[in-house]
Amino acid sequence: MIADQDIAVLKSAILRFVPLTAEEWDLLLPALAYHHLSKGEKWINEGQKEQRMGIVLSGNMRHYYTRDGAEKTTYFYFENHFVGSYISALTNKPSQLTIEALTDCRLLTFPYAHLQMLYEKAPRWERFGRLLAEYLAIGLEERMAGLLTMSPEERYPELLHGNKQKILERIPQHYIANYLGITPVSLSRIRKRLLEK
Amino acid sequence: MIADQDIAVLKSAILRFVPLTAEEWDLLLPALAYHHLSKGEKWINEGQKEQRMGIVLSGNMRHYYTRDGAEKTTYFYFENHFVGSYISALTNKPSQLTIEALTDCRLLTFPYAHLQMLYEKAPRWERFGRLLAEYLAIGLEERMAGLLTMSPEERYPELLHGNKQKILERIPQHYIANYLGITPVSLSRIRKRLLEK
Repeated sequence: MIADQDIAVLKSAILRFVPLTAEEWDLLLPALAYHHLSKGEKWINEGQKEQRMGIVLSGNMRHYYTRDGAEKTTYFYFENHFVGSYISALTNKPSQLTIEALTDCRLLTFPYAHLQMLYEKAPRWERFGRLLAEYLAIGLEERMAGLLTMSPEERYPELLHGNKQKILERIPQHYIANYLGITPVSLSRIRKRLLEK
Repeated sequence: MIADQDIAVLKSAILRFVPLTAEEWDLLLPALAYHHLSKGEKWINEGQKEQRMGIVLSGNMRHYYTRDGAEKTTYFYFENHFVGSYISALTNKPSQLTIEALTDCRLLTFPYAHLQMLYEKAPRWERFGRLLAEYLAIGLEERMAGLLTMSPEERYPELLHGNKQKILERIPQHYIANYLGITPVSLSRIRKRLLEK
């Protein structure tokens, strides 16, 4: 039994993209499942075909790529964020990402295949799919452009933009340093220089 | 007057994503425009709000980001490729990309706003929009994962994958080196090592 207030969180996140009638919304309900992750637990492992996506109800998570054992963090998730290896679900290929809980986390999830079925059933769900994919593409381009055109010192304020308080209070320094591709010591120096400005 | 065979190129590229009735297809026709670019000409400049997207009828192009005057190539376009600063059109923000003709090029283009209007008019056009955004997101993630997890020697065969002959025959070496983030001399060494394998 999923709590009403948890369903309300997902509903409000979806309605931010697109209005749905009560009947359209109800089409998603049978597919919902509740997940609890413990701190440090991996929700999706690199190489795995993950077919569910979901929303973070509480807690925070990150995702990363791996190269020769070294992690390359490219995203932090907080409450109300959609989470999933969306590209793996789209392409039905193994995930290149690992998605890990940085704290105990509560998620509400549904199979990507159910969403695809909704695209067939209701044009408004298809609109949600278009807007979700566009939102994802915008975020991916911003991060790739950031990697190619900005120094760690420029990328740090960019990372904080919009989520400043949550990132500073809830994400351990070494993960922020990993996102920027620098050591925690270099991050301390950057923070000091930015405070002096 | 746009030639029928040029319209057929665009139509077949769109129908690869989604089937359309003759009536649905005709909704795009009034918005089409033909463009000719000379070798070296920039179709879209960084900082510009570009609101058109199109398809390459002939020729090849590249796009790049710029950092402190240095170019960072991340894509090569050939015939039948959709081209545009799609994220700039989506977000209505200035383009981070510059898109340049590497040869004389012929394009067929339409305003992004017209496509958005079609999303309202016909669910099948909205499906095209979803699939196009998903296709774009998949490509963006692949390139970002490549940048983060692969060496230039690993990224080179990945770049050639699917377009090997076109890239080897039609893209000057220094642009391929720029894509890989290395000097043309390093690229020659990589090619030599790969040939010896």
